[in-house]
Amino acid sequence: MDTLSVELGSRSYPILIGTQLLARGDEVSRHVTARDVLIVTNATVAPLYVPPLRTALVDRRVVEVVLPDGEAHKTLANVSRILDVLVANRFGRDACVVALGGGVVGDVAGFAAACYQRGIAFVQVPTTLLAQVDSSVGGKTGVNHVGGKNLIGAFHQPAAVIADTSTLDTLPERELRAGLAEVVKYGLICDRDFLAWLEQHVDALLARESAALAQAIRRSCELKAQIVARDEREHGERAWLNFGHTFGHAIEAATHYTSWLHGEAVAAGMLIAADFSRACGRLTAADVQRIGQLLSRLQLPLDVRAIRATDALELMRMDKKVQSGRIRLVLLDRIGTARVTADYPEEALRATLAAHFG
Amino acid sequence: MDTLSVELGSRSYPILIGTQLLARGDEVSRHVTARDVLIVTNATVAPLYVPPLRTALVDRRVVEVVLPDGEAHKTLANVSRILDVLVANRFGRDACVVALGGGVVGDVAGFAAACYQRGIAFVQVPTTLLAQVDSSVGGKTGVNHVGGKNLIGAFHQPAAVIADTSTLDTLPERELRAGLAEVVKYGLICDRDFLAWLEQHVDALLARESAALAQAIRRSCELKAQIVARDEREHGERAWLNFGHTFGHAIEAATHYTSWLHGEAVAAGMLIAADFSRACGRLTAADVQRIGQLLSRLQLPLDVRAIRATDALELMRMDKKVQSGRIRLVLLDRIGTARVTADYPEEALRATLAAHFG
Repeated sequence: MDTLSVELGSRSYPILIGTQLLARGDEVSRHVTARDVLIVTNATVAPLYVPPLRTALVDRRVVEVVLPDGEAHKTLANVSRILDVLVANRFGRDACVVALGGGVVGDVAGFAAACYQRGIAFVQVPTTLLAQVDSSVGGKTGVNHVGGKNLIGAFHQPAAVIADTSTLDTLPERELRAGLAEVVKYGLICDRDFLAWLEQHVDALLARESAALAQAIRRSCELKAQIVARDEREHGERAWLNFGHTFGHAIEAATHYTSWLHGEAVAAGMLIAADFSRACGRLTAADVQRIGQLLSRLQLPLDVRAIRATDALELMRMDKKVQSGRIRLVLLDRIGTARVTADYPEEALRATLAAHFG
Repeated sequence: MDTLSVELGSRSYPILIGTQLLARGDEVSRHVTARDVLIVTNATVAPLYVPPLRTALVDRRVVEVVLPDGEAHKTLANVSRILDVLVANRFGRDACVVALGGGVVGDVAGFAAACYQRGIAFVQVPTTLLAQVDSSVGGKTGVNHVGGKNLIGAFHQPAAVIADTSTLDTLPERELRAGLAEVVKYGLICDRDFLAWLEQHVDALLARESAALAQAIRRSCELKAQIVARDEREHGERAWLNFGHTFGHAIEAATHYTSWLHGEAVAAGMLIAADFSRACGRLTAADVQRIGQLLSRLQLPLDVRAIRATDALELMRMDKKVQSGRIRLVLLDRIGTARVTADYPEEALRATLAAHFG
């Protein structure tokens, strides 16, 4: 087992990465210290991993909320439902919420924990690659609004992240690839060498070779932990982590969070963001091609022609990174170096959107 | 105009106390720096004070949400409604929410500001005595749940508090007296001299003499600002501010937030808390009598016999201050000195409840 740390003073917490952490149970029992525990999970994950989690917490009072699976259920209504269960069971400030599942479960459960009694403890037990390498780390919690993604939420750091890589054995192919998109993101925004390593290990990662997956998860968490420690509230470089996301959120919203997985939309969004970086005179055409090639080899969908460019632009304007009417975008100066800017020709953005969208 | 400060490092903010601050408008314009402003208010306050507020913000894009008046509307549904308006108007992270009204408006609007895009700026413009001396200062925001008061919320500090004491001219008698209950609280928990001053100025305060009201507001804000600066997240002494509130919340919940104003319930709750402090061997019977006399002279309702003692206890168990099943209570060691404790005989609590409730 590897242990990393997110250094945030009194709110610092460990990220544990290893095999069989749920089955062994000792780390779960150690890091979930509360007497009263609410497990939040979804209908797909529940039958697979609630039993070992309950065994690990056998000496606690455990209550369960099972959400439907999917991004469409990342709603304020589900947060309200979790709060109702916390109240109905009279859980106090010393209770703990355990988020068992992917990014949706973690975001919804974390936000409920942030709001209940103005904030109770929560522990992330991510069971998807995407959640293990990205969404479970860093304290961003929240839900979608029909008007846009993650528009409602809170910063609320978990007490621990327990990433059991054995749970990836049951992860569908498509979700694995979606998670790899976020792994590629780290290489693109801040670690050129890691990107090269990923290019060399595409086959091993798709074949779920455990050493390759463990290394990809560890390095991703390490990079994210460093960025979050330096900029918890996203006043600066943390925004790099949104590379591809403004375009990706538009893709997800345009398709009502049903046909694209978040990581898939981010993959397509990163390619568009890379191409726009090129249009702004930053990346070379060869860089963009290299990025497209890696994402294609990872079998990620990149064709967004079914979405109209004008709809995409409209949805991008609802993104949280809009300031004083300008859409702030994360662009690459070169592979491994990102920057946030609103200083680009509006016409160039329209042209790039037109080149990719329908 | 007096200016106090809540010292919280990078989140410090001013409390402005003075007459005609809305009518003059310059302080409002200075402290609401955003281009996009959402005013949240209620149906009673809107016709009185939205016009001067809009005049002060004439160069901004101003949108308005008018809630029904009353504690019964401090709900997650109304937070959701405010969020819908923020989204519908495409307000960005640089927008500002202005809470114009009493404690309910401030708590609901502040919580919406805390959740929107994981936190945008908000400015408190309290128009009731209770909000000016207590709820607008300190960053506690949130809503009630059918299961209990303030069970859902966030710590989110305002960017400024603008307390225009001229707005008290239109405040109903009953609301004025409810606000004075929270003023008395400060004397009881931490300032014996202030309590004596209040006893000497009951008539002046009830007659709304401006010098007396200004002094009561200033001293209350000063004491609250000091406590919040030392203990923002209520790990210690901030809990003193809940003196009388656990009993009071039970009174409010038992009557479905309709028949008792919050300050009235706190008044009755403080007398019960004082009597329980006596039962625990802390206060003298003369102290309790003195407190009851002051609250009576302020014409606050103290008779809770219409509520059953068993119902009150049940509701107290849902209070946020319950830890590991024990109800933590704020008791007085003597007038001017409070302490939080869960260490008291359960039987004594039942006896005190039986003596006051029905």
